[in-house]
Parts: sequence; C-alpha cells; structure tokens
Amino acid sequence: MKLEKLVGDRFRERPSDCVIDSHALMVRGGYMKYVANGIFSSYMPLKRVTRKIEQIIREEMDAIEGQEVQFPVVMPASLWQESGRYESIGQEMARFRDRSGSPLVLGMTHEEAAVHLVRDYGQSYTKYPFMVYQIQTKFRDEARPRAGLIRVREFTMKDAYSFHTSQADLEDYYRKCHRAYERIYARVGLPEVISVASDSGMMGGNISHEFMLLTPIGEDSIAICTECDYRANMEAAECIVHNRRNEAARNLTLVHTPGIHRIEDVCEFLHCEEKDSCKAVVYQRNSDDHYIVLFIRGDLEVNETKLTNYLGYDLHPAVITEESGLNAGYIGPVNLAGDFTILYDRSLEGMSHLSCGANVSGYHYTGLDMSRDIEGAEYHDFAKIQEGGVCPRCGRPAIRVCRGIEVGNIFQLGTKYTRSMNMTYIDSNGDARYPVMGCYGIGIGRLAASICQAHHDEHGPIWPLAVAPWQVHLCAVRADDDEVRAYADRLYEELRSKGVEVIYDDRRVSAGVMFSDADLIGAPFRVIVSPRNRKQNVVEILSRDKSLSASVSMDSAAEEILKILSAAM
Amino acid sequence: MKLEKLVGDRFRERPSDCVIDSHALMVRGGYMKYVANGIFSSYMPLKRVTRKIEQIIREEMDAIEGQEVQFPVVMPASLWQESGRYESIGQEMARFRDRSGSPLVLGMTHEEAAVHLVRDYGQSYTKYPFMVYQIQTKFRDEARPRAGLIRVREFTMKDAYSFHTSQADLEDYYRKCHRAYERIYARVGLPEVISVASDSGMMGGNISHEFMLLTPIGEDSIAICTECDYRANMEAAECIVHNRRNEAARNLTLVHTPGIHRIEDVCEFLHCEEKDSCKAVVYQRNSDDHYIVLFIRGDLEVNETKLTNYLGYDLHPAVITEESGLNAGYIGPVNLAGDFTILYDRSLEGMSHLSCGANVSGYHYTGLDMSRDIEGAEYHDFAKIQEGGVCPRCGRPAIRVCRGIEVGNIFQLGTKYTRSMNMTYIDSNGDARYPVMGCYGIGIGRLAASICQAHHDEHGPIWPLAVAPWQVHLCAVRADDDEVRAYADRLYEELRSKGVEVIYDDRRVSAGVMFSDADLIGAPFRVIVSPRNRKQNVVEILSRDKSLSASVSMDSAAEEILKILSAAM
Repeated sequence: MKLEKLVGDRFRERPSDCVIDSHALMVRGGYMKYVANGIFSSYMPLKRVTRKIEQIIREEMDAIEGQEVQFPVVMPASLWQESGRYESIGQEMARFRDRSGSPLVLGMTHEEAAVHLVRDYGQSYTKYPFMVYQIQTKFRDEARPRAGLIRVREFTMKDAYSFHTSQADLEDYYRKCHRAYERIYARVGLPEVISVASDSGMMGGNISHEFMLLTPIGEDSIAICTECDYRANMEAAECIVHNRRNEAARNLTLVHTPGIHRIEDVCEFLHCEEKDSCKAVVYQRNSDDHYIVLFIRGDLEVNETKLTNYLGYDLHPAVITEESGLNAGYIGPVNLAGDFTILYDRSLEGMSHLSCGANVSGYHYTGLDMSRDIEGAEYHDFAKIQEGGVCPRCGRPAIRVCRGIEVGNIFQLGTKYTRSMNMTYIDSNGDARYPVMGCYGIGIGRLAASICQAHHDEHGPIWPLAVAPWQVHLCAVRADDDEVRAYADRLYEELRSKGVEVIYDDRRVSAGVMFSDADLIGAPFRVIVSPRNRKQNVVEILSRDKSLSASVSMDSAAEEILKILSAAM
Repeated sequence: MKLEKLVGDRFRERPSDCVIDSHALMVRGGYMKYVANGIFSSYMPLKRVTRKIEQIIREEMDAIEGQEVQFPVVMPASLWQESGRYESIGQEMARFRDRSGSPLVLGMTHEEAAVHLVRDYGQSYTKYPFMVYQIQTKFRDEARPRAGLIRVREFTMKDAYSFHTSQADLEDYYRKCHRAYERIYARVGLPEVISVASDSGMMGGNISHEFMLLTPIGEDSIAICTECDYRANMEAAECIVHNRRNEAARNLTLVHTPGIHRIEDVCEFLHCEEKDSCKAVVYQRNSDDHYIVLFIRGDLEVNETKLTNYLGYDLHPAVITEESGLNAGYIGPVNLAGDFTILYDRSLEGMSHLSCGANVSGYHYTGLDMSRDIEGAEYHDFAKIQEGGVCPRCGRPAIRVCRGIEVGNIFQLGTKYTRSMNMTYIDSNGDARYPVMGCYGIGIGRLAASICQAHHDEHGPIWPLAVAPWQVHLCAVRADDDEVRAYADRLYEELRSKGVEVIYDDRRVSAGVMFSDADLIGAPFRVIVSPRNRKQNVVEILSRDKSLSASVSMDSAAEEILKILSAAM
C-alpha cells in the first residue's frame, strides 16, 4: 500500500473533544470518523487492526471447539418477549416496527438468538456440550458514549454461547474459555490484562468475570488485594468491616443541631468521627418513586449495584419532598415510621456510641446502640469496598482500588435463558432437563482502542506486531532522488513478494512530515531509505518502540527485515 | 471438525415453505434457520461458505486498489436528509428514534456514509481516484422476502464506492470493476454469470449493470439477443417496434360493443388482431391518486419501470371510480378529456386502422388513425420487450426472455451524491468541482444461495471447491471396527496437519445415513474408509459431482487426496 493513496487525513492538533489519548491518536491518525454520538466509521488502518484482532479471536474460539455462526442484527420482539428481556431491558435497546407493524429490536447481545438457533438441535444429552459464536455488529443505545471506541453505541463484538448438561461441565468449559481469553490478550499485545470477579448485571447468572486492562482512564473501578490474588470489580466486591462495639453504656441523647445536615458537619459539630455515625442514604424506586432508606456507617459509601441486586428493581437517588414524611438532613433509624423500605448495612451491626439523625428537623441523637435501640434490624452488605479496606479473601487490610477498561467478560448464565425460552434436552434417564449456559464476549473496537491506549507515545500508537495495520513502514526520504526511489521501489516489491505487509511512503514531502505520519500509523518497524544512507550503502531499520535501531547493508536489507520480523513474531 | 459435533439438524423431508431447491437444501442441510420474515441465522457450514466468498471478494477488491473500511449499520437521519433520500425512500428503510429522540435509520446502502467518510479527505484533485469498500450487514424492509437467502430483509453485502475527477476516469474504473466481478464469479464457481444493462432505480445515475445467474427460478427477467451480445434487464431494455402504417383510407367508426371490456374480447368481437388495437392502461400517482392514462399497442405490455422513470414519481395500477371521468373498459384516445396525464407508447406512432375505446360505455371505435385523429401526441418507449422482439443493438428479431437471479450490480452514479451532499475538490485550475462516483455491490448470502441453486442435485448442494464449507468429507463406515477407526483417525489427523479442511464422520450410523448427510454438506470430495475397503487395502475417493471415483492405496491415501485437491484448485 502506498501511503499517498491511503484514504483518511492525518494531522497534528489534538481534537478538543478527545478526552483520552487513544481516541485523540485514532482521530489524528485517520483511523476513524465520527458519524453520530457513539457511532463511527472506520478507515482502512483501523479496519486492518480489527480484522487481525478478529482473526486471533476466531482462532482461539475454534481451538476450544467453538463453531462460528451468525445471528441476526435485527430480531423480532417475540424472541425477547420469550426471555422476558423485552420488558426488563430499558432504553438501551433500540426498537422499531417494520412495514407490517411487527415490533423488531436491534441485537445488543444474543442469548435469545443463540437459544433459538440450537433449541431444536440440542434435544438429546448426547449433543452436549457445544459452543457457538459470532463476530457481528451490535447496537446498544448507551446514555453516555465516551472516549472514542471505548464506549460506543454501535460496536462489533465476538459473542459466544456454550451449552452444557451440568454446572460442573459449564465450569470446566468456563475455565477453558478463561484460558483462551488469556491467550487472546497475550496475542494481541495485552498480556497485562487481568480477570476480576464481576457483577452479572442484566445477563443473569451468578459467577462472572471481567477482563480488565488497568489504566487510569478506565471507567471501571477494581479492588485488588496487594497481599493475595483477590481481584474484583468494585460493583461486585464484598465490603468487609470489623465492627468494634464499645461496651461502655451510653444513653441515647437528643442534641440540637440547627441547620446542620451533612454528615461531615454533623460529626464536626458533635466532635465524633464519621465512622462513629449512622448515615441515611435515600433512594426511590424507578417505577413508582417508593422510598428506600438505607443506613450505613458514616465513612462508607453505598454500592448501588449491590443494593439494586438485593432489591431486584431499579432505583435512583431520592428527591425528598415535604410530603414524604422524611426529614431531609435529620433522618435516623430510631422511631422512623412511614411507607418506606428500611435497610441496614452490616457496617452498623452491633455498633454503639453512634450519632444519627433524630427524624426531627434540627435534632440528632448521640449514643445510638444498634442492638439496644433498633429492633429486628437485618444487616446486609451494601457498602463499597475502599482503598485500604479488608480483603474478602485473605482478610488483610490490603485492598487497592484501581481503574480499568473492561476488554472482555465471561458469564455462567445457568438456566436463566433455557428455562425462560423452554429449551430442554432428554438426559440419559429419559428425563427432560434445562441445559446450563455460559456466554463469553469481547468488544473488538474497544479492544483495539485499549491496545492503542496501552501502547502509545505522544506521537502515535505503537501497535504490537500481531495487530499492526502494517508490519513495516518504508520511507523513501527524498523520493525525487532517482536512485533512492529506484532502490526503495525494489525493496517495496521484494518485501511485498515475500508476504510482508508494507506501507510505502514515496511522497515528495519532508522527512519530518514522513516520520510524524509514520508515528501515527504506528507500524512496529520503520525502514528508511535516503540519500545519506545510500551513500553509506545502508538502510536504517528502527522499531516504533525505540528498542531497535540498526543500519543494515542495502544488499541484504530485505533479508534482515524478514529476520527481524520473524524474531518478533 | 467431527460431524458428530456439528450444531444443526439435517433431515430428509423438503420443508413445505421452501419454493426453490437451494432454500430447501440449505434448510435440510443445517445451513440456516428462520428467525423472522426475511431474517435468518446461519449455522457453521453456511458461515464457512460465506466467509470464503467474502475473502475472494476482498482479494479482488484489494486487487483493484480498494481500501476496506467500515460504515455504520445505524446512521443518523441527517445524513440521509442531506442526500434527499430520507424522504424519497419509502417503507423499505427502517427508521427509529434513540433515547434522546434523534431519528436514526438502518443502512440499506451506504452512498451517504461513503461521501461522509471521504468528504474531508478528497478536497484536492491529487487525491483521486480512490475506492473504499466494506462487507457489512444491512437491513431493507422488503415487502416480499422470498426464496430463502435470495430475497431477505437482513443481508450481508460487499458495497464499494469509487470517486473520480472525470466521467472518463469513472468509466475506466467501472470497466476494471466489471472485470473484477467476472473474476469473482468465476472463482466462486459461477463463471456462467453474465452482465446485463440495468435500470438504476433509486441509486440514481445512468449507466449500470447487473450480474445475472440465469435460472428459471430467478425473479428478474432478462432480454438476451441470440444474434449479438445485447443483454439487458427487462426493466431497462428498449422495446423496438416497426410500426407498419396502412395507408388505405378508413374512417373512424363508432361500433356498439355492449359489455365487452377486455382488449382480447374487443378484438375478437371486432375481428381484428390485438396488435391492431390501441389499449389504455391506467395508473394512479401514489401521492395523490392523480390518474395517468397510457395508450399502447394492444399486444404489448407496459414496462412500469420506464413509466416511473419518465414520470419521476411512484404510481400504482388505478382503481377507476365513477367520479374519475373515465369509462373503464371503453377508454380511448379520441376526445378523452379530464384531469389526467395522457401518454402514448411509441408502438402507436403513425399507426392507422386501429380499434380503441370510444370513452362511452358500450362503444368502441374502429379505423383510428393516430396521425389524423390524435393531435400533438408525443410518443415514448413505455413497452416491455418481448420474446422474439427486435434487438435494440443488431436490429434482428432475436430477443429471448430469460429469468435470472441478480448476484451483483455496478452503477455509474455521476455527481448525484457528491452534489447533494456538497462534496467538492479543487481541480488543477483551482476551481471547485463535484467528484464523480461509482458504486458496486454484491450480496454475500444471495450469492451463496445462487451457487447452491446452480450446483446441486436432489440430494444436496455440490459446492465448488473454493467455497465449500469443507474440502473433504471423510466417512469411517463401521467406525465400531477398531482398525477402520484407527486408520480413519490417523488419516483425519494427517489431512488436517497438511491444511486440508476435513469434516470427519465417525458416528456409529449406517452408511446410508452417512452418505445422505455427506450429500447435504456437499464437500467436493468424499473419502470412504470401510471394512470392505480395508480388506482390499484401499480407500475410496469420490467427487460430489460424480466426475471422479477412485480407489487408492491406504498407504498413499493422504498424498493422493492432496494431489486431487491441488489439481482441482
């Protein structure tokens, strides 16, 4: 490919709407073009990167007996009504009607389509296990697309679905797939990706893992133990608290706290620490604005994912009205009455000497003793794990909180979909049973952007060889010099004939323009033919990551390049 | 791949809803599964066929300097409003609103997206020509999906868009692309595909060609001259008529024809031939039901595509009401008055001695002389070319009408999209100009189905080697025989290790079941290991198309198979 013919503009200025480096570089390098919020077109360099990623994924899925299939992008609503998700999924699913008025949806995931495809086939236990996968475009109407290809509305994804006759067999396959994912990330140049326990969200099922690239620009928070191998998404991480009860008797005492609402102000006023207070956090149910009052230790934050999972419905932070019966700023667990759901985080269990609201404007209590003053409270884990918190696995206070990009996920779905969609098989005893499912996803565009995010400098991406749009960037500096051009043309043809993927820059532009374009295209190896090099009968070979800088004889340049490439593979 | 693990059912019964053989065989063979009207999932065998077709197309597009890119499936309405097609395309375009209420569409073609992608890049004449293409899923809400993958609503398509600074350069590239298409059809096993001149329809532009597989089950009609190389879609074929005027004087005479409406009954009653009558065909404009009355020679039919193109709006066959001012069954060109658009096909130009309606119920005229009786008539070509008709190229009455499946199309679009979307470049004189565009499409699924339609017998598809899901179908007949199994296992591994794509049937089923499954999977070569063959120390090799049947020594079987494959490639 001649660079001169490559469609797409490259430029120096960082676009003002690009928050993260990979997005800025992929716009500056002519990889992608904005079409609408969260919707992009790809130019050739990005298409080449994503096709290589897809091929690596395909090989690894095939290696674990996956069968590549294709599900539709557009599906009838009836398929999603079978599973119940037509109703349970909200605005993120695009819906429309066809010319006959039948409701259709755009696929954002394909559990329903997978069950539909194999429901007739999988009627006997002898057919199991099996896995089908596809690489296909999906649409999810995200509320807040961001960071270029990291969070988009239209995306290409590899999604795989496995079917089993037992949980044990699913777990066995799940481990196989976990290892396949590790190989995939290693092959695309991200061996540093880690897996973390995650919340299963709308997918259902219990056990699931996310594969995370740790990076400060990630939108997920991950709890990692520095003392053991515990790793979990914050959403799923258990918060361990060691409640130290103060046994000295102290009475519940009403204190006038006029105009003091916020927990930090209350504690300052009462000369206590936030961890010695009982804070109220109030939500409302989305469907009918019913109030949920959650009490939690004053220094902790609520993990809304745990709360939603516990309640089984969606909620939002409350707007506390006068009619609600709640005294905003003064809500406490003593004598709180009304049509509320009241919940207690286990950080409060057995605690004493706490301050809390008194449910009267301008008043708080001190000396709250949960065991003595609050009858019949049940305590659950609703708290966010914290930096320095206790590891749920090894028990040491060694939790670090990091940011990460989720570059893949795997779920043990159980029988959620086979049961709701009535897929059964006959087992060896002649009994009808529901197959157990797993599902396994990787977003291709997000992975490409993550590779760029992990491997770049201020000048451009530093693509790993396995996914680089081209392997070699050949620069003919001063292509107006006949001998430079003649040699570079020959070298280009020779490398191409040997199967090397070369982008060839023979434009009559300055070396500066050439090199900054080469930086943006990010091929792992750059080969420079120039009048000065020619005088010394050499060709320069540089690696994009600066680990290699060599001059080789013009006569053996092609051979040397092939050696370097084969060593790097 | 072991056949036992292949997801998908194969069965003998022809599904009652399958009208054409390829559809029936692809359902019976476990290639595809119905999801909704015109929407299918693909199992692994079909996915393997389509991926091979895609790769062949990709190679040929790359060979004519195409750059693979990707456009979105979901696009903002604004992009289609720019070109004017948001309004001009009807129900076939799926439309919906996102969570913020913004109107979106599903791409059914990507001219707008292509212009959007390259509009900034192509600002100087020095960047031209260039071509970008994608292979992507599209959705078109067809009113009448039919014949399995032949006419669907969701489909995967290769669509390419080229940009040029002159019509001459476009034509040059158009010819290159035409040749690339010929190579594609030859490589996928359909060298018999022909190109025919076509109507450009909603794409705009003037010159276009369709690539047709001639087959009685095709939904397109094609006019082919048996004496020269003229070939055109019926929709686009000019209808040549040699009007032979009878100069003998004859008066316009009113004849009582009570209750006689249809042209054939009128002609029988009046003892004249249909070709000596002037027939009225009435349409209504879709937007407001305005009447269009078209007069044409009684033996000819109206080509509605030509009529629509001439009028520039969509229409439908008329419902003639009492209030219309038209006398259904008695409409004629003499003294026809009212708020109608009146058109004349050129088959009537200068004709005399015609019978026609008298615009009075129960009466016709004889002796109509168009030149004498109809003033100011303009004649245009609105007629369908007919079997035995005159070739527009060589002038001989040698037209044959055939049926065909359109398996690709190429269009010279001109500046329709660049002009409406305001894409300009600066030419070498410093003037701003609109680039000239071409576009080039191939539907992947339809091509796969067409290959199956062209190459099958009653037992299954006979896939050409280049697109077959597997190259070799290895049958271990009596796999319960330890030696048969051991040998077949070894042969399977040996072939696989040499890169041969093998589907291996080692199930304990009868040879009959094995062979009928192999027929449905349609691998070009079948290799049979059996106790009887083993006794003779041979392996049988049969080609699916029955052209080859050989017994080779067990010791050299792998080698012989490789030889046969490489000879067939």
